Amino acid sequence: MIIVGERLNSSRRSVLEALNCKDKKYVIDQAKKQENAGASYIDLNTAALLDKEMQTLKWAIPLLQKELRIPLSIDTPNPEAMEAGLKIHKGQALLNSLSGEVNRIKTFLPLIKEFNPRIIVLCLDDEGLPETSDKELSIARKMVNLLEKEGVEHKDIFIDPLVRPIGVDQRAGGLFLEALEKIKKNLPSVNTIAGVSNVSFGLPRRKSLNRAFLVLSLQRGLDAAILDPLDSDILAALRSAEALLGKDPFLRDYLTFIRSSKR
Amino acid sequence: MIIVGERLNSSRRSVLEALNCKDKKYVIDQAKKQENAGASYIDLNTAALLDKEMQTLKWAIPLLQKELRIPLSIDTPNPEAMEAGLKIHKGQALLNSLSGEVNRIKTFLPLIKEFNPRIIVLCLDDEGLPETSDKELSIARKMVNLLEKEGVEHKDIFIDPLVRPIGVDQRAGGLFLEALEKIKKNLPSVNTIAGVSNVSFGLPRRKSLNRAFLVLSLQRGLDAAILDPLDSDILAALRSAEALLGKDPFLRDYLTFIRSSKR
Repeated sequence: MIIVGERLNSSRRSVLEALNCKDKKYVIDQAKKQENAGASYIDLNTAALLDKEMQTLKWAIPLLQKELRIPLSIDTPNPEAMEAGLKIHKGQALLNSLSGEVNRIKTFLPLIKEFNPRIIVLCLDDEGLPETSDKELSIARKMVNLLEKEGVEHKDIFIDPLVRPIGVDQRAGGLFLEALEKIKKNLPSVNTIAGVSNVSFGLPRRKSLNRAFLVLSLQRGLDAAILDPLDSDILAALRSAEALLGKDPFLRDYLTFIRSSKR
Repeated sequence: MIIVGERLNSSRRSVLEALNCKDKKYVIDQAKKQENAGASYIDLNTAALLDKEMQTLKWAIPLLQKELRIPLSIDTPNPEAMEAGLKIHKGQALLNSLSGEVNRIKTFLPLIKEFNPRIIVLCLDDEGLPETSDKELSIARKMVNLLEKEGVEHKDIFIDPLVRPIGVDQRAGGLFLEALEKIKKNLPSVNTIAGVSNVSFGLPRRKSLNRAFLVLSLQRGLDAAILDPLDSDILAALRSAEALLGKDPFLRDYLTFIRSSKR
């Protein structure tokens, strides 16, 4: 599974402070630790920095790329900030995120053509959050067709069927898993991705729900997850599920993880 | 999910000692705790007591039934001990276990006719452990037909597609899940059951594998599990998966479990 490390998110107070005061050590440390724990991308979310987003990306991206062997996921809804980020990023970044919303398409599509990033596509459009898995599949299809026409390869597309909290709607887990399975079946050559932790929003013992949801999602075809690779429990669940599903030849990743983890 | 509490197993040294010296307090305590933690059956395995099996069952079954509201799973390959156990058990016991082996059928079928227990059926026969999910399905079908002819209802049958260790054969997890799915699809009215912990035999951090395997199995249609309900982590995984799969209306079991568990 492709892991997108989620820790450098400006919605976390400590990250917001570090980005605001340009705390090189903290930012590099958070990124390096996630890389060492198995992340394939480091997500860099700057949305909470408001009018300082662009300058923050211009500062943080070269800083991080000097230290990391893996690329970044540039996570902002702001097209100017995204453009500045993609321009300065070396190699193929991950754009987080496109959606079926007209305005998002209009502002992000030119950037995709110019910079050729890999792309996370949220399964929502101007009608809001889809209420059925068929609607999610139809948005996914539409977006894959649109990106295909722009020359984007399927391997560079990550469809994100939105994860909603089961504390709000108990059908949310089932709806996500159903959408995931339909998308994998109908669009087998594109990737799927999710931020699994949304599922447990507002409930006690969230980590237990997140772990189980990641395992269930892996079985239904999830290719990538946005998560905290420093959470040893969720990594253990992931490596266990991969081993059990025959996705880990010689149990190499499982055993490496166990040896490297502290407890 | 139906939980069969596995702690009173004579392969555990402390249980063997307690059964050998008729330690009432220990045996009752282990059973009560499992009942309180959500078990629907208490497995009582006496196989390691050898020639004292029958007298041990005759002592332990009334002792336990006086204290418990739930029935017992009588777990022995010895037909005389099984007969003595079923004879003394009040209400419908769970017979653990029948299989497709000719000798097992010959000795256990008369007991099934006489005492009408629910029955765990292992997916193996005299050819040994099946190597494919189709072979497991064919054993399951054969045994269901055989039991049907004896008047056993489908709801009283628990098919156990054997769980083998992934440390020995990395395809074992996938094989089990495939067999489970095929059996549920082709024999939807019978139950499925498994002792999930065998999957991790010989590997480090077994609990993490067991948890993930239970979650994967639940998604593929497992109805019952033989496990330790006092293992708060595996119960958390189970209650989480049920909540996420929409099998826990109003998240009642999940929230009850969280409130009652210590950490």
